[in-house]
Amino acid sequence: VILEALIGFRSRPRETAAQLASSAVRHAVSLCRSLLSETGEVSGVRLATEALEVYRSLDAPAQAAFFDLLATGFSPDPEAVGAAAEAYRKEPSAANLSRLLSVVEPARQELFRRLNLAPDGIRVLVAMRRDLLRHAADKPHWVSIEADLAHLLNSWFNRGFLELHRIDWRTPAIVLEKLIHYEAVHQIHGWHDLRRRLERDRRCYAFFHPALRDDPIIFVEVALTRRISPRVQPLVDPDAPVIDPRSATCAVFYSITNCHEGLRGVPLGNFLIKKVAQDLGNELRQIRTFATASPVPGFRRWLEATIEKQHDRPQFAALAPVLARMSEPDWLPEKHASELAQRELPALCAHYFLHANNGMEPLDSVARFHLRNGARLERINWLGDTSPAGIQRACGLMVNYIYRLSEVERNHESYIKEHKVVASRTIESLAKESILERRERRDRRER
Amino acid sequence: VILEALIGFRSRPRETAAQLASSAVRHAVSLCRSLLSETGEVSGVRLATEALEVYRSLDAPAQAAFFDLLATGFSPDPEAVGAAAEAYRKEPSAANLSRLLSVVEPARQELFRRLNLAPDGIRVLVAMRRDLLRHAADKPHWVSIEADLAHLLNSWFNRGFLELHRIDWRTPAIVLEKLIHYEAVHQIHGWHDLRRRLERDRRCYAFFHPALRDDPIIFVEVALTRRISPRVQPLVDPDAPVIDPRSATCAVFYSITNCHEGLRGVPLGNFLIKKVAQDLGNELRQIRTFATASPVPGFRRWLEATIEKQHDRPQFAALAPVLARMSEPDWLPEKHASELAQRELPALCAHYFLHANNGMEPLDSVARFHLRNGARLERINWLGDTSPAGIQRACGLMVNYIYRLSEVERNHESYIKEHKVVASRTIESLAKESILERRERRDRRER
Amino acid sequence: VILEALIGFRSRPRETAAQLASSAVRHAVSLCRSLLSETGEVSGVRLATEALEVYRSLDAPAQAAFFDLLATGFSPDPEAVGAAAEAYRKEPSAANLSRLLSVVEPARQELFRRLNLAPDGIRVLVAMRRDLLRHAADKPHWVSIEADLAHLLNSWFNRGFLELHRIDWRTPAIVLEKLIHYEAVHQIHGWHDLRRRLERDRRCYAFFHPALRDDPIIFVEVALTRRISPRVQPLVDPDAPVIDPRSATCAVFYSITNCHEGLRGVPLGNFLIKKVAQDLGNELRQIRTFATASPVPGFRRWLEATIEKQHDRPQFAALAPVLARMSEPDWLPEKHASELAQRELPALCAHYFLHANNGMEPLDSVARFHLRNGARLERINWLGDTSPAGIQRACGLMVNYIYRLSEVERNHESYIKEHKVVASRTIESLAKESILERRERRDRRER
Amino acid sequence: VILEALIGFRSRPRETAAQLASSAVRHAVSLCRSLLSETGEVSGVRLATEALEVYRSLDAPAQAAFFDLLATGFSPDPEAVGAAAEAYRKEPSAANLSRLLSVVEPARQELFRRLNLAPDGIRVLVAMRRDLLRHAADKPHWVSIEADLAHLLNSWFNRGFLELHRIDWRTPAIVLEKLIHYEAVHQIHGWHDLRRRLERDRRCYAFFHPALRDDPIIFVEVALTRRISPRVQPLVDPDAPVIDPRSATCAVFYSITNCHEGLRGVPLGNFLIKKVAQDLGNELRQIRTFATASPVPGFRRWLEATIEKQHDRPQFAALAPVLARMSEPDWLPEKHASELAQRELPALCAHYFLHANNGMEPLDSVARFHLRNGARLERINWLGDTSPAGIQRACGLMVNYIYRLSEVERNHESYIKEHKVVASRTIESLAKESILERRERRDRRER
Repeated sequence: VILEALIGFRSRPRETAAQLASSAVRHAVSLCRSLLSETGEVSGVRLATEALEVYRSLDAPAQAAFFDLLATGFSPDPEAVGAAAEAYRKEPSAANLSRLLSVVEPARQELFRRLNLAPDGIRVLVAMRRDLLRHAADKPHWVSIEADLAHLLNSWFNRGFLELHRIDWRTPAIVLEKLIHYEAVHQIHGWHDLRRRLERDRRCYAFFHPALRDDPIIFVEVALTRRISPRVQPLVDPDAPVIDPRSATCAVFYSITNCHEGLRGVPLGNFLIKKVAQDLGNELRQIRTFATASPVPGFRRWLEATIEKQHDRPQFAALAPVLARMSEPDWLPEKHASELAQRELPALCAHYFLHANNGMEPLDSVARFHLRNGARLERINWLGDTSPAGIQRACGLMVNYIYRLSEVERNHESYIKEHKVVASRTIESLAKESILERRERRDRRER
Repeated sequence: VILEALIGFRSRPRETAAQLASSAVRHAVSLCRSLLSETGEVSGVRLATEALEVYRSLDAPAQAAFFDLLATGFSPDPEAVGAAAEAYRKEPSAANLSRLLSVVEPARQELFRRLNLAPDGIRVLVAMRRDLLRHAADKPHWVSIEADLAHLLNSWFNRGFLELHRIDWRTPAIVLEKLIHYEAVHQIHGWHDLRRRLERDRRCYAFFHPALRDDPIIFVEVALTRRISPRVQPLVDPDAPVIDPRSATCAVFYSITNCHEGLRGVPLGNFLIKKVAQDLGNELRQIRTFATASPVPGFRRWLEATIEKQHDRPQFAALAPVLARMSEPDWLPEKHASELAQRELPALCAHYFLHANNGMEPLDSVARFHLRNGARLERINWLGDTSPAGIQRACGLMVNYIYRLSEVERNHESYIKEHKVVASRTIESLAKESILERRERRDRRER
Repeated sequence: VILEALIGFRSRPRETAAQLASSAVRHAVSLCRSLLSETGEVSGVRLATEALEVYRSLDAPAQAAFFDLLATGFSPDPEAVGAAAEAYRKEPSAANLSRLLSVVEPARQELFRRLNLAPDGIRVLVAMRRDLLRHAADKPHWVSIEADLAHLLNSWFNRGFLELHRIDWRTPAIVLEKLIHYEAVHQIHGWHDLRRRLERDRRCYAFFHPALRDDPIIFVEVALTRRISPRVQPLVDPDAPVIDPRSATCAVFYSITNCHEGLRGVPLGNFLIKKVAQDLGNELRQIRTFATASPVPGFRRWLEATIEKQHDRPQFAALAPVLARMSEPDWLPEKHASELAQRELPALCAHYFLHANNGMEPLDSVARFHLRNGARLERINWLGDTSPAGIQRACGLMVNYIYRLSEVERNHESYIKEHKVVASRTIESLAKESILERRERRDRRER
Repeated sequence: VILEALIGFRSRPRETAAQLASSAVRHAVSLCRSLLSETGEVSGVRLATEALEVYRSLDAPAQAAFFDLLATGFSPDPEAVGAAAEAYRKEPSAANLSRLLSVVEPARQELFRRLNLAPDGIRVLVAMRRDLLRHAADKPHWVSIEADLAHLLNSWFNRGFLELHRIDWRTPAIVLEKLIHYEAVHQIHGWHDLRRRLERDRRCYAFFHPALRDDPIIFVEVALTRRISPRVQPLVDPDAPVIDPRSATCAVFYSITNCHEGLRGVPLGNFLIKKVAQDLGNELRQIRTFATASPVPGFRRWLEATIEKQHDRPQFAALAPVLARMSEPDWLPEKHASELAQRELPALCAHYFLHANNGMEPLDSVARFHLRNGARLERINWLGDTSPAGIQRACGLMVNYIYRLSEVERNHESYIKEHKVVASRTIESLAKESILERRERRDRRER
């Protein structure tokens, strides 16, 4: 390997940035360069460890200066790339391809691979990508660093390297406290709450990467139940009675959490759901139904925008105060608002799933995830999630998706190719009853 | 991700090859294409498993046809590459770099990443590269496949992902039998032999990759001794007496074995030696010397060629029958030949290390390995390895390299930058006593 | 084995008890008898499991009836015992001894051994002894059952069968929650508190019995410190700063808890302290001092009794209101009371340790434990334990015992043979300054 | 505890023995006495370790002297026993029982419990009992020591404390080499042979005691087959083809080995067979038949004695040379002898099982074991075991017992109560065809 080549092309802006950089930043970059040089070969572990230590000691402006240098100084040389590409274009031989690839790959990628030599290096690299993503908007030139990291992390966190572990009350506390920390969908309120979620009629599974010890990558929480739960609160109630898992016929996935922002885009949820469904099905033969109890994160925002747009129509106008009322803490028991909401909101939600799009795909991000995985939208549940977050996101609605292993591939194909929202008949009928579609039909009739 | 792009450019020759391919080959390729398509996203594990099963069922010609198709059909499109490179050359922006990288990466790399979804996929991929390397000479167009695999394996078998495990008599038999199988330097003759090598005064350590279960990547065998062993046979003698490890002051690395041909070029030996030296030093404080008992694989071949060239000089001519005699089974006890050999060979070997080069580096491959790692060539031992292999490779010579943690980086630098062979004074003096140098000095005096 | 013999002698009272017993009790006893019969040999696991299930379902009166039956129906036959003893007395041969032993051992012991065949049987047997001990006072005839169980448990929980495990934040939650539950000396207030006690500068070790899974038998909590702590509160403060364990020179055992009342009298604390001291000393060489921060459970009660007795002496009378004041929640800051207490109480406590006896041994139970183990009483600390329990037990005093491995055996001998309280000079002098001894000296002078 | 009492009564003979004892023996005994004294409490681990070290260093005569001292010096005092027994006879109260028990238990038992404090003490105690058993015949006075050890080992190796582990090729070599060493029924000829016995269609399970690390107590080897094997050789053939375990319907227990002579009489085989049958049945649902391929250890000896007795009857006389011929190495292919043997021997063997008794129980020890466990004698197989041992023990016959979980308890009861040999109809008919019964019928008819 011609290691000098790895250090790569250095564009102008670097020099200026370097002048601003603190000595710590210069030290970090200098360690990175040593790591990439031939010295790195024999002193790799030491250099990588030092480089990451210095990196972690940087304050925000210094970190930014460091990233500025990484963004410019470790990219491929445009002229060399041009020449190699031209040679390959003229003669697409193995040798020309090989040269092209070695010239094109940013030195950053090799740098990150070598930083990974440090004990726990992977942990720092995942955190580094998180930091980069958080500044994606205001630092567009960092996108190359982020992309290089993303490329490596995608390769390293390949599902073939992940291990599925069941998490229960025998799991080390150091892992359990991370669940409490990470859980985003239905917050875990301390150890008492967690303990209930790990009882005999609950299951929790996580993917782990062997090099990221004691730290789950993604985890799913499952309730073993006797029917598809129309409400999520009983599933997360720490004082809910425990049922005999052998009497359960249904597994409800009520929460799935990606633990690391720095691994955004690494597709694991799909593998996790399927693997867990398979394993559960093998272990508990009487479990036949695999469903979710899912949030509808975009419904309320969409609904409010829709009401806004249609505020001159009385039916919509009537909904506005109901929604406003919902934000107040003691809303639930209120009879009138509830009745109107119960009549209109589920139908509007059905419409939202079937027709509110973002490009070709549904507007709802959770819907996109499950439909892409091959699930079917089964049921919309009024007051299915009455937590503050549930009210806030979806006016208290919660939905069940269903995973039928036999139809998952077909559904996935339909979704990918035709962007078809695979939904139950009930939901399709419900959508037609929504104010929007009723009105449209009336409008059409009137015309 | 625009997945269609991944399937990539298909050059002409593929079509012809495809016609020749058996239906199994076509099936394998078709599975690979499905795996790369959007279907692969949801059915990845199934498709990868099937593809690898079909691949493993291929006979040699079918495998060759499969590789032919991989070599051509999954490379980047020269025109697209040319255009993206030109754009980047004109404006080396993050966006242009990103586009360039996505166009240049061969679809094969993503294919291999997805094949890794299959249980034990990594095992098949390592074996696949082995098969490709074995045909490197007669199938030059497969080099692209091999290079793509090498690129991924280098990244996946990054030292940061490997685990060091001590191997002893408590290790599962399934791992131990692999040691017997892999050991190449000093063959292990069955379980009785192995057991001795795992006694209290021996150590064995291996790197494992978490996804390659029960299969070491590289392992080293160490003897704990009271001095730097001048002979290797006592170290591998199954009936040698066991000493108390607390009385040892020296750790002799007498064998280091790369287990997988498919991982050739993944640099691990260096890390292994240093990590083991560190760990041993921490555990047994009285161990101060870390040395090797190493073969000299190229000496005899070089010596025979040298004798051939100098056959008109009587001193060299006298060596020829001695070497010839060495190949006979009962050579050792012979007095006359031994005396001559003992007088001349070590000195010639010293000369060989210091002056016989392959380009800028020493001709001897083991020397290149240890010197590059920062070791020092310490001693040449007459009759240090009297096994048939030892006689065959190096006329019975064995050498000790020494690893001093404090000088390893400096030695490495000298070697990398000036190709300096760091050797003890003794060896430098010895070289001067060799026939070659004596003669040269005489020639010079005579001139 | 003549199994019939095992069922043993049945004394009269059983019949009456049986009449009162519920059918569940009769069922339990009948299962016990089957278990002891030859059927038990082949159906042992099933019968034991059933018997323990029935036993656990008994309510308090039924349990009492069951114990009544066990106490009478499974004891040795007095006549058979008499005959066998007489034979042995006449001729103490091996054969006669053997017969004697087989006649004397109560069938209960074999019954308990067979109940142990049930999965988790040992857990139930330990709980059974706890229940028996709790009624020791009002059910003297149960003492035989309790003694038989104690005999077996002592044999089964032999230190040779126990495993020492370090407990830290990687320990399964199911074990950690037990620590929270069991800790008796310095209560653990939930997981946050526990976490601090498992930080780098704290250690926790427990003995486990392999058959009592996930359940510690006895555990000790240790603080690594830079000096012998004069106060216990900083050691158990969840927000105390964490120090680098490598800077510690002292290990302070601040809590030792026996987890199972049913194992009362099984001597393990001694082994635990010594094993932990040894292991810690090997791991952290700079730790040279092994001390405790111990409560003085009997001091205040003794002091109050002493004051009562001496209430006509003004110095004692002055102490009474100080003690009374101590029980109030805001006592500490009060200056006057504190000064008097600080001047007089430590000296009285020294006197208490050296002269207040229960028979030949010290009155203080913790002192008896540590002195018997060979420790030395080192220091009495005013306001060393200001927790409500500390005030309540010992007016806020806390003491340090020291374990010097080199003098442990000698101290133990002195204690055992002469009941000598091995204490530091300071403590001996202190005792002489106590009101009691001052007065005595004065009295003597006056005489 | 009154520890002095533990040291116990010392009868006369000890003094004489002591005079003969070497100083090492006296040292060992003195350590034992210290261990029993109060010093033992605090220095138990050290004293026990030393005592066992000294014990292990004793040569045979010294060991004998040590046992002589143990046999006499640590027994209960006859007078004290007599008094306590008399008190209990007069008033069988809990207090009197307690006193009686403490007086009767030999100090040896407490000594052995305390010796168990030493690391690996249990291993030495098991070996000690083995040594005692080996001299049972010539040292009848050692029986007390042996009985005390047996009593403790029975209690300590209670099935509730044992762990069942599956043994396969992932098991540590240190355990596997023990299997090779211990296997007694069908010798394992090295690692190649062992490996076959751990393939997918074979199973091996062992009970382990947590304190006897890496050392199985008892193990069973099982073949998964498609029918009840009529021959044992294919089951132990290292080159037999491996079948898919999912196609097996039958589990054949072809070898069960007690590993430790020192644990003779501790009943574990019964538990092992049943637990393994249960576990296998749960794991591989299609396995319905649990059978054995068992030796008939006593058949040939009985047959030869019978022939001897009946040598004047021609039919028996004809068998004599056939049996004689069988001992020669090349016997098998011989036609004539085989035919006669094949016709007569199985029937005689059936008769042997049903009618050859040792007291009330069958003469055959393996039959006693399986019948007592509740198995049924199913089939006698001509040439079922053609190994030299098989010929030697049973003229090449091998039998299958069957375990039906549903009838095991009933069979056991019949066996225990009526000594009934539960056998298949075929075997009952076969017995009637034996020469012995044919003759008897004829004799009866003739009368």
